[in-house]
Amino acid sequence: MDSVLDDISHRRYNPLRGNWILVSPHRTKRPWRGQEESPSGNTLPEYDPGCYLCPRNQRSGGAQNPDYKDTFIFINDFAAVKEDQEDYESAKSEDKSSLLLKAEGVKGKCYVICFSPAHNKTLADMSIKEISVVINTWQNLYRDVQQNTPFRYIQIFENKGESMGCSNPHAHCQAWTTSHLPEEPAAELHNLIEYRRRHNSCMLCDYLVLELEKKERIVAENDGWLAICPWWAFWPFETLVISKKCIKNILELEGERDVELFAEIISIITTKYDNLFETKFPYSMGIHQAPLRGTDEEHAANHVHFHFLPPLLRSATVKKFQVGYELLAEPQRDITPEQAARRLQALSTELYRDKLD
Amino acid sequence: MDSVLDDISHRRYNPLRGNWILVSPHRTKRPWRGQEESPSGNTLPEYDPGCYLCPRNQRSGGAQNPDYKDTFIFINDFAAVKEDQEDYESAKSEDKSSLLLKAEGVKGKCYVICFSPAHNKTLADMSIKEISVVINTWQNLYRDVQQNTPFRYIQIFENKGESMGCSNPHAHCQAWTTSHLPEEPAAELHNLIEYRRRHNSCMLCDYLVLELEKKERIVAENDGWLAICPWWAFWPFETLVISKKCIKNILELEGERDVELFAEIISIITTKYDNLFETKFPYSMGIHQAPLRGTDEEHAANHVHFHFLPPLLRSATVKKFQVGYELLAEPQRDITPEQAARRLQALSTELYRDKLD
Ligand SMILES: O=P(O)(O)O[C@H]1O[C@H](CO)[C@@H](O)[C@H](O)[C@H]1O
Ligand SMILES: O=P(O)(O)O[C@H]1O[C@H](CO)[C@@H](O)[C@H](O)[C@H]1O
Repeated sequence: MDSVLDDISHRRYNPLRGNWILVSPHRTKRPWRGQEESPSGNTLPEYDPGCYLCPRNQRSGGAQNPDYKDTFIFINDFAAVKEDQEDYESAKSEDKSSLLLKAEGVKGKCYVICFSPAHNKTLADMSIKEISVVINTWQNLYRDVQQNTPFRYIQIFENKGESMGCSNPHAHCQAWTTSHLPEEPAAELHNLIEYRRRHNSCMLCDYLVLELEKKERIVAENDGWLAICPWWAFWPFETLVISKKCIKNILELEGERDVELFAEIISIITTKYDNLFETKFPYSMGIHQAPLRGTDEEHAANHVHFHFLPPLLRSATVKKFQVGYELLAEPQRDITPEQAARRLQALSTELYRDKLD
Repeated sequence: MDSVLDDISHRRYNPLRGNWILVSPHRTKRPWRGQEESPSGNTLPEYDPGCYLCPRNQRSGGAQNPDYKDTFIFINDFAAVKEDQEDYESAKSEDKSSLLLKAEGVKGKCYVICFSPAHNKTLADMSIKEISVVINTWQNLYRDVQQNTPFRYIQIFENKGESMGCSNPHAHCQAWTTSHLPEEPAAELHNLIEYRRRHNSCMLCDYLVLELEKKERIVAENDGWLAICPWWAFWPFETLVISKKCIKNILELEGERDVELFAEIISIITTKYDNLFETKFPYSMGIHQAPLRGTDEEHAANHVHFHFLPPLLRSATVKKFQVGYELLAEPQRDITPEQAARRLQALSTELYRDKLD
């Protein structure tokens, strides 16, 4: 990288999302006197009788959880979208009202997936084998909704930590399926398709080669996956994890070995994150892949990857706020992605909590 | 509005920004056991010797504040952009590296504007006259940077409250000028121009007429401005405040009367916000207007408006988290904009804190 970018304010372009990010390398020197997050404690019990996600306990909706042994999946008791509701589409005429007050109905289904019966185990605490079961659960769900529902997309995501709106520390992710392709995967798909038409190759394959060559933003790597702080990272320690094979969805992982490699990279990243500030590192994470149904081109242009979006900036308690300027003008970051990658790469893959025992 | 939208999940289109928002009216019933914000206290002193924004005090950079009497403007000691730095533009060839690792230098200047010498006065506590002085300060700054700098855009914004990353309760806003047009105003401008070409009228003028006619989303109104929860609001109590005259930038406000009407609508909205949960309501707020320099079409397509983006959802302590699904798939909201507008409209314009005296 042109080293002048370590010193000057600049914008970087995100060709996957199609937007610019303002980078201000100097700004980390700013003193912080604002809100601090409460660092997460390490002292959760293995079973919490008050937790609605623990085995055998009752949920808010009234149902009782089974005595599950690995993962457990159920329909969100307070789902944002539902399978059954009235149909709706606003008028499609060209009058001002239909132009400016446009809406469409959305059907779908929201799932919650507990990673483990243990109340106190996050992905970083789990074994490769245990994480592999989580991945298998994602695969089964993808297959099931693709075969048995009319929905177009499934967004698998995890909110981890109180500062990421997670209301229960019992590790779990969610999967929302919807009748439409949502904004973010739609924007990525649009750009992937355009790139493919123009350059006759896959954007993420090309980007993978480039990052392996430059070696400036690598966080971790195994035979199946590359984890980097992407050139265009917005969140301080954001990572993009790209499959080395150009697979279109998680069903195209071949056999146990592929699943294990996937589990391993998840384990490495979540461990490094926790080690960075010796805390249970908060983040939102999500997988982008091919729509459940779509055109051949939409399928072909995809390349499975996942995004980790963690808010912490300087310590277990000081996060980056994405507020006024970021919301009203342009995303802005303080450290460069190269600086973030160097720090993450240097960290051990042994969890700090385990060493304490 | 088609009342079925009060009951079903749907998406609404934002023609100004060009994106969709998922609306889930049912979801407010969800119990909340996650992070709570600390409500803001009302007991700040009028002068705080430890505050770097109070008159006569020293700032982090070392400079001493003057004994100012109304507003006070200075260059941010930890600016995200600067006037003087090396020039930079990445190579414009068509090789993969220039395509995927694209950057450009950004110059600019960051200002901080204190609203008042009083440490404990927010916009809601200030008189119309005092707010008018703030508006005059914005106008003078706009004129000054337009005449004396080469920059293309000025983003005036306020982060208010700890949960919006504000590190000092002494009321102030910021103004960042940059050599480029940032993402958000650029996207709006693009859509305003397209609309104008297609329909030969101004999108925000048309929208204003429509909202005055429908009367379903109005929060407040005076002779100069209309404040609504827009059809496509993303934040729970988001408002869009539109000038009734189709002015292009804040310099086109004519005379004292126009400035007073502007000050009055700011006073009304910030007071209603504080009254909603009887707290100093956090938000990010910003003004969108014509670029400092641009084409005639870019100027003509504009229409001054400002956005209030407040995070609180249910009480002074429970906010809406925009996390996993919102970041990775699509913005999502729980109450409808119509429900939010009804609540805000019904609130008094007399500040709850004043009644307590
Ligand atoms: O400039 P401040 O007030 O120190 O900082 C605040 O506003 C900036 C502009 O929205 C953000 O980049 C920061 O994350 C936030 O803490
Ligand atoms: O579904 P949960 O975990 O109750 O809620 C959390 O994740 C959702 C999806 O990102 C968000 O809409 C909520 O604001 C957040 O608190």
